Amino acid sequence: LNEERIVQGFLRALTGEVPEALGLTDDCAVAAPPPGESFVFKTDAVVAGTHFFADDTAADIGYKALAVAVSDLVAKAAQPRFWQLALALPAPPNEAWLGQLCQGFAEVQDSSGIRLIGGDLVRTSGPLMLSVTAIGTVPTGKMLRRGGAQAGDHVYVSGTIGDAALGLAVRRADAVERWALTAGAREQLRVRYLRPELRLGLIPALGRYATAGMDVSDGLLLDFSRLCRAGGLGGVLDLDRVPLSEPVHAAAEGDEGAFETAVTGGDDYEVLAAVPASLAAEFEQAAKQCGVLVTSIGEVRSKLEIEITGRRRTLAASASHGYQHFDTVTAG
Amino acid sequence: LNEERIVQGFLRALTGEVPEALGLTDDCAVAAPPPGESFVFKTDAVVAGTHFFADDTAADIGYKALAVAVSDLVAKAAQPRFWQLALALPAPPNEAWLGQLCQGFAEVQDSSGIRLIGGDLVRTSGPLMLSVTAIGTVPTGKMLRRGGAQAGDHVYVSGTIGDAALGLAVRRADAVERWALTAGAREQLRVRYLRPELRLGLIPALGRYATAGMDVSDGLLLDFSRLCRAGGLGGVLDLDRVPLSEPVHAAAEGDEGAFETAVTGGDDYEVLAAVPASLAAEFEQAAKQCGVLVTSIGEVRSKLEIEITGRRRTLAASASHGYQHFDTVTAG
Repeated sequence: LNEERIVQGFLRALTGEVPEALGLTDDCAVAAPPPGESFVFKTDAVVAGTHFFADDTAADIGYKALAVAVSDLVAKAAQPRFWQLALALPAPPNEAWLGQLCQGFAEVQDSSGIRLIGGDLVRTSGPLMLSVTAIGTVPTGKMLRRGGAQAGDHVYVSGTIGDAALGLAVRRADAVERWALTAGAREQLRVRYLRPELRLGLIPALGRYATAGMDVSDGLLLDFSRLCRAGGLGGVLDLDRVPLSEPVHAAAEGDEGAFETAVTGGDDYEVLAAVPASLAAEFEQAAKQCGVLVTSIGEVRSKLEIEITGRRRTLAASASHGYQHFDTVTAG
Repeated sequence: LNEERIVQGFLRALTGEVPEALGLTDDCAVAAPPPGESFVFKTDAVVAGTHFFADDTAADIGYKALAVAVSDLVAKAAQPRFWQLALALPAPPNEAWLGQLCQGFAEVQDSSGIRLIGGDLVRTSGPLMLSVTAIGTVPTGKMLRRGGAQAGDHVYVSGTIGDAALGLAVRRADAVERWALTAGAREQLRVRYLRPELRLGLIPALGRYATAGMDVSDGLLLDFSRLCRAGGLGGVLDLDRVPLSEPVHAAAEGDEGAFETAVTGGDDYEVLAAVPASLAAEFEQAAKQCGVLVTSIGEVRSKLEIEITGRRRTLAASASHGYQHFDTVTAG
C-alpha cells in the first residue's frame, strides 16, 4: 500500500466528493464559509500509548481521533463541516486495518456531516499518531466562547459524566472487582471510553441560548472551574446534581473513589454550557426536543471562588484535579 | 514547563494577538476570509528521523516545519494567513530549545505574515513530530490548481533546483569529497536544505498569470510530470534550462550523479507554474519586479508523453524518480 493507493483507495471515499476536497488530487483544499458565517478551527492530536491503547481496534481509534475534535466544534455551537488529517504510521498499514480505521472515521462523518478535505501521510519510528484539524461553521460573531458566561447563568452538562473515566479503569482492569459491576455495565463504560457520543442535536439550542460553551475533556471539576474563571467569575457546582449513568451510579455507591474518578477523570466529551437563568426553561425544552439530556449542575457567580456543594463535597479539595495535558499519560 | 506555560509563555507570542487566535485561551479559533475570498488549507507533518534530523537545531526544525506548509500556499497563489500546530514532544522541552523552535516559526511568520491561531500539544514515546495546518486566502475560484495548465503553456520554476537535495547529501557527508566543493558552497547547500526560501513576492504574479501551480517538493522531474499529467496532458522539460546555483553547477560538472540528485531529489520548495505563452513575457516582467528569479524550463503539450531534452537527457529514464512519500526515509 503506497501513499497514492492509501489516499485514493481508502481516504478519498471520506471526502464524499465535496468540491472543497478536490478529490484529494491537488496540493491544497479550498473552502469558504457561507455568507455571514465564519469557520471555527480545532486541532487535536492523539498518540498511541498516551491517548489510546495501541491495541484498540482501528475502528475505535479512528472514531475517537475524529470525535474528540468534532466534540469541540459542537460545544462551541459550530456545525461540523470539514477536516484534515495528519496520519503518522509506524509501519505500512494492511488493508484490513486501514479499512477499519476509515470505518471509524466514517461513523463520525455519517453522524456529524463532516467531510475529509485533505491531509498528510507520514512514516514515524514512534507510535501511531493522528492529528485532526476539524473545521466548523458558526454565524459570524456567534462562536460560543469559553469565557462568555455572566453571573447568574445556569451551568448545564449534556449526557452523563464519568462513564469514560470509569471505562478507562475497566479497560485497564484497574478497579473492576471492587466496583462489582455486571459484565453489561462494564461493557457500557468501556464503549463510552472508546466512543464519545457527539451531542450534535444540541448545536442549534446552544447557538440560540448559551452564553459560554466548552467540552468536558479534562474532568468535570476542572472544566467547570475553567468555564467560570475564563469569564473572570466564580461558580457553584452541586455534585448531587451531576448526571450519572446506572453503571457509574452503581460503582460510586460502593466506592467513593469511583465518584471522584467520575467527576475528575477526563474523556467525557460532553458539552458544558452556561445559559442565562431567564432562558433556562426554553433551553431545557429545546434540548428535550432534540433528544439530548441536559442537566443543570450549578451556577456562575460573581464571587471568584469555585464552591462545591452536595453530599460528597469533601471532593472540593480535588477541584483542581483533572487530566493535565502533556504531563500525564492516560493509557498504555 | 507545563502546557499552560508553553502555550502562554512561548506560543502565544506567535499569534501577534490577531483576534482569530483568541489569545490561545479558548478551545477553538475562529476566522472568516475577506468578502470574495476563500481559505486554502494545507496540512503537512514532519517527523524527526524522516523529514529532519533529530539533532537539527530547534530553530531550523521550526523554520522548516512551517515553511514547507506555507510553500504550498504560495504555489497555489494563496496569501498565507493563519496556522495551527500539533506538536508531539518526546520529553518536556527546556526553555532554550522551545525558545529556538519558536524563533524558527517567527522567522517564517515575519516574512510571510502568517500567524498562529491554535493547536495541540501532546506527549509521545516516539520522535518529535510537528503537524502544521496552514491557511491562506485566495479570491474565490482563483486557487491555482495542479491540473489547470493548457497545451502550449510555458512551465516556470522559481529560484534554483537541487540545492536542498545536495544540501541533504552534505548534511549526511555522503558525497562531499567527490564534489570538491568549497566550505562556503557546502554551507550554502546545507542552509538551502534546512531553510527553504519562500517565494512570497511571486504570489500576485502567480494569481494574475499562471494557469497551474504547485511546489517542487518531491523532485523536479516527478513534479513536472505531475503538473502536466494532472491536466490530462504531457510536456517537454529541457534539462539544459533548469536553473542551478553555483555550488550545484560545480558539483554537477564533475559528477553526473550530482545532477541527477539535483533534478530528482526532494525538498526544493520552489514554485512550479504554468503560464500561457501569450502572457509569458508579462509574467517574467512581473517576477523580475518582485525580485524572484523565474526560469522557463519547458512546455505543456497535448501529447501525453513527458519528453526530456538537453545534454543530460539520458536521465529521462529517471523521470519517475523523486521522493516517494511514506515509503522512503530521507534522514536519520
